[in-house]
Amino acid sequence: MQRTRRFWGWGFEDAAPTPAEERSLAARIAPFLPIAETTMAPPTPDEIHLTRPRLEAPASIASWCETDDLARAGHTYGKSFRDVLRALERRWERPPDVVASPPDEAGVVAVLDWASQAGAVVIPYGGGSSVVGGVEAPPDDDRPVISLDLRRLDRVLEVDVDSRAALIEGGIFGPALEAQLRPHGLTLRHFPQSFEVSSLGGWIATRSGGHFATLHTHIDDFVESIRAVTPAGISQTRRLPGSGAGPSPDRLLIGSEGILGVITAAWMRLQDRPTFRASAVAQFTSFEDGARAARALGQSGLWPTNCRLLDAGEAMVTGAGSHHLLLLGFESADHPVDDWLARAVELARDFGGVVAPREDLVRDASATWRSAFLRAPYIRDSLVRLGLISETFETAITWDRFEPFVARVRHATESALSDVGAWPGVVTCRLTHVYPDGAAPYFTVLAPGDGPRRLDQWRTVKAAVMDAIDAGGGTVTHHHAVGRDHRSGYDRERPDLFAAQLRAAKGVVDPAGLLNPGVLIDP
Amino acid sequence: MQRTRRFWGWGFEDAAPTPAEERSLAARIAPFLPIAETTMAPPTPDEIHLTRPRLEAPASIASWCETDDLARAGHTYGKSFRDVLRALERRWERPPDVVASPPDEAGVVAVLDWASQAGAVVIPYGGGSSVVGGVEAPPDDDRPVISLDLRRLDRVLEVDVDSRAALIEGGIFGPALEAQLRPHGLTLRHFPQSFEVSSLGGWIATRSGGHFATLHTHIDDFVESIRAVTPAGISQTRRLPGSGAGPSPDRLLIGSEGILGVITAAWMRLQDRPTFRASAVAQFTSFEDGARAARALGQSGLWPTNCRLLDAGEAMVTGAGSHHLLLLGFESADHPVDDWLARAVELARDFGGVVAPREDLVRDASATWRSAFLRAPYIRDSLVRLGLISETFETAITWDRFEPFVARVRHATESALSDVGAWPGVVTCRLTHVYPDGAAPYFTVLAPGDGPRRLDQWRTVKAAVMDAIDAGGGTVTHHHAVGRDHRSGYDRERPDLFAAQLRAAKGVVDPAGLLNPGVLIDP
Repeated sequence: MQRTRRFWGWGFEDAAPTPAEERSLAARIAPFLPIAETTMAPPTPDEIHLTRPRLEAPASIASWCETDDLARAGHTYGKSFRDVLRALERRWERPPDVVASPPDEAGVVAVLDWASQAGAVVIPYGGGSSVVGGVEAPPDDDRPVISLDLRRLDRVLEVDVDSRAALIEGGIFGPALEAQLRPHGLTLRHFPQSFEVSSLGGWIATRSGGHFATLHTHIDDFVESIRAVTPAGISQTRRLPGSGAGPSPDRLLIGSEGILGVITAAWMRLQDRPTFRASAVAQFTSFEDGARAARALGQSGLWPTNCRLLDAGEAMVTGAGSHHLLLLGFESADHPVDDWLARAVELARDFGGVVAPREDLVRDASATWRSAFLRAPYIRDSLVRLGLISETFETAITWDRFEPFVARVRHATESALSDVGAWPGVVTCRLTHVYPDGAAPYFTVLAPGDGPRRLDQWRTVKAAVMDAIDAGGGTVTHHHAVGRDHRSGYDRERPDLFAAQLRAAKGVVDPAGLLNPGVLIDP
Repeated sequence: MQRTRRFWGWGFEDAAPTPAEERSLAARIAPFLPIAETTMAPPTPDEIHLTRPRLEAPASIASWCETDDLARAGHTYGKSFRDVLRALERRWERPPDVVASPPDEAGVVAVLDWASQAGAVVIPYGGGSSVVGGVEAPPDDDRPVISLDLRRLDRVLEVDVDSRAALIEGGIFGPALEAQLRPHGLTLRHFPQSFEVSSLGGWIATRSGGHFATLHTHIDDFVESIRAVTPAGISQTRRLPGSGAGPSPDRLLIGSEGILGVITAAWMRLQDRPTFRASAVAQFTSFEDGARAARALGQSGLWPTNCRLLDAGEAMVTGAGSHHLLLLGFESADHPVDDWLARAVELARDFGGVVAPREDLVRDASATWRSAFLRAPYIRDSLVRLGLISETFETAITWDRFEPFVARVRHATESALSDVGAWPGVVTCRLTHVYPDGAAPYFTVLAPGDGPRRLDQWRTVKAAVMDAIDAGGGTVTHHHAVGRDHRSGYDRERPDLFAAQLRAAKGVVDPAGLLNPGVLIDP
């Protein structure tokens, strides 16, 4: 059964909020935030009118190359606030000329060969769920554009149960990946918020963050080896559990956002499907106390699978109560984890946490939040249609600077919203991942937009946020990736010499600069 | 108190085996292996006669530049079997012309500037304990050579107790590092076998393996940010607990073996000093059963700090008994770990492990082995003096291929020893590190050498071992590094495109190719 993607916004048509849900959402928001008088209607396919494609696929690959307006519009943007707003405004800027969806790796090679000959840009496209401008055409580049959609590379090719690893094609989405691993009792257990509409190759290319809150926070740790197609040939690393042989070749591809090659397959480290679980929720009267508890947990060596701290605003917005909440969870396929949880609860109490005494409460708050988490991007689209600025951004910082950093970023966000006339709004914070040496704060912004000025408002706020994160010493992105939206922050963060090295490394595999030019580095 | 290094062999003069110990060692070995009639005498400083240095340090830095024979001879080689044998043979091939030991980072910059102007090669030198030819002059390069000894960069500069991290200079050795962290209740807890004679910068540059047997096996995971001096300028990454902003710049430097820069300082993630400990030893009748238990432990999520499997030969050689032994240990600064150990013991028993019932036995076998571990390189030198071939090598492999791989490598080693007339000898194996998806087998070779043919014998065996590892799909090195000795294996292991990218990345920071040329890549 092929589900239909929403070409203008997040996810699938069949999972979109119903009109009743949208009315209830509007009623829930209205007391806090002024919503627009007219809800923007989603665009329909017949409203798309693109300029003619500048490329024609060679006959040998034409059968899987699309040039119709709907396919091209659906591959013009990712799914950031900016992307959804542009689509709602019926603006399809710089659409790809062709959407190529090769059936196999040879097809990927054929696309790169064709692009080389045609002087075209190639934008690797997985689930298209980028929220950072990672899959759109470069703004200052006149070359024709091919969106290289990898969705047909969707198989688990080989499972090695002994090593708990599998060779998996790069274009596979989360649900299909898990479905193919399930019969083996195995799971990748990597659950980014985009899980349903993002691909393994995309996760690797963007250093995706999953739902292990500690220890294995990024996809990086699960990569055993990578196979990638480049204009200069195919690169394949060796399957190894660990190595000390030179700098890791995989780590250069991990996070390369399509500029160094197209990830066609990877051997991934898997988990046994957990059979033991234990969880709890601790309530705190201050976010800072909750963060101190999270720090103690991050440094305890208990490695909770869940250790997410929601501030009171976040908990309220998602309907999970009115306290600062620390969601704690442990799981294992090997042993009961009640002792682990008991010690974690002790630590939470050491910092003033009040632990919900009843199992059902625990399940409730935690389940409510989890369902809201997966649903959030759909709701985001509805909020955009209601005229709001709806944005999330995230970072990471060491513990020594944590409190002033969060305060600074929060204040900068609120000030910027105020400066652009989008205040009062709501800025909430949660910790998505916790490390021994720091944490990843994740901010959600909801603010009233000013009609046609909304995109400019967003742009100004985004720049102010990046300034604050940079000045405070955080990272421009903990797991959303750099794309085009975070370039200015990234340029300040990475060493100049490293950028020059990246450029040189790109020159080796992509001398003509076909691959996703302008993401991470110029050109 | 400045301890005196042994310029020709491992470690410190004051820790060298006494004549009585050496006699006892010879008596213990003689029943198994024919030892030479004459024990080679260690060289004395007056036996060193080097060609005149081809460089003269500029006046501004001359005060910390040495050109005397002893300093130059002591920096000519690392400490591999080949190195010690060459030194015992009074051969100092391609000694550095100057040994520069700058007092600070500015001094490192000055050395690189001088080298650029003088057209000299610079070999970063930490503890000089390389066992892979990582700190010697390139064989086919006529340029003068500067050994850049970083030993004076030996301070912990800043401690961040909240984040459990410290900014530490690159030249510090293990004991000084730990001594400076101890007052803060913190430890890096990275204990490679070379701990006493190797440096932080060296660990990072070579992807050193420490004494966490699972989880944090390499220094890689403890690096929060790196500061490095290159001919093109200084590179400094941002301190972050985690990030998804592009490929990790640190991961390009980690394992770069001196070719991409000189690591002058790093922010390192630390541990609280453990207060809870529990350990056990399980005996197995077959190595394969022990490995299956190790696999189950590696996949259990218990993350034992110690999980080392010694084969019977290894256990016997080190005096720890006559069974295959699995050494298990847990530690924590947060919570008692007895439950963790209890579950680990259950797992070991599931695979036929007989767990020593008495605490003292546990301590004995484990302590005996640990003391032998730290002592081994000194003993190695004594064995070389007794005329033996004494070598260790290590690799890593996924579990699905583990048993045939170990058998293949062992057989190839024994066959090669036999082919070169160095048989019967002893080949033992242990697992030093255990992963969910594989393990790191470590082999020790002891064999009778044939007088002046001994170096050729070693070379032939080494090549055969690398062939077997390559053919079996392992890595040429799990934590000893590549250096010059493993180049041929490394060249087959890493993707060609990655080597070209490394070369391009080197060209950016080191256009004249001053830095450790020939290690990892040509030139």
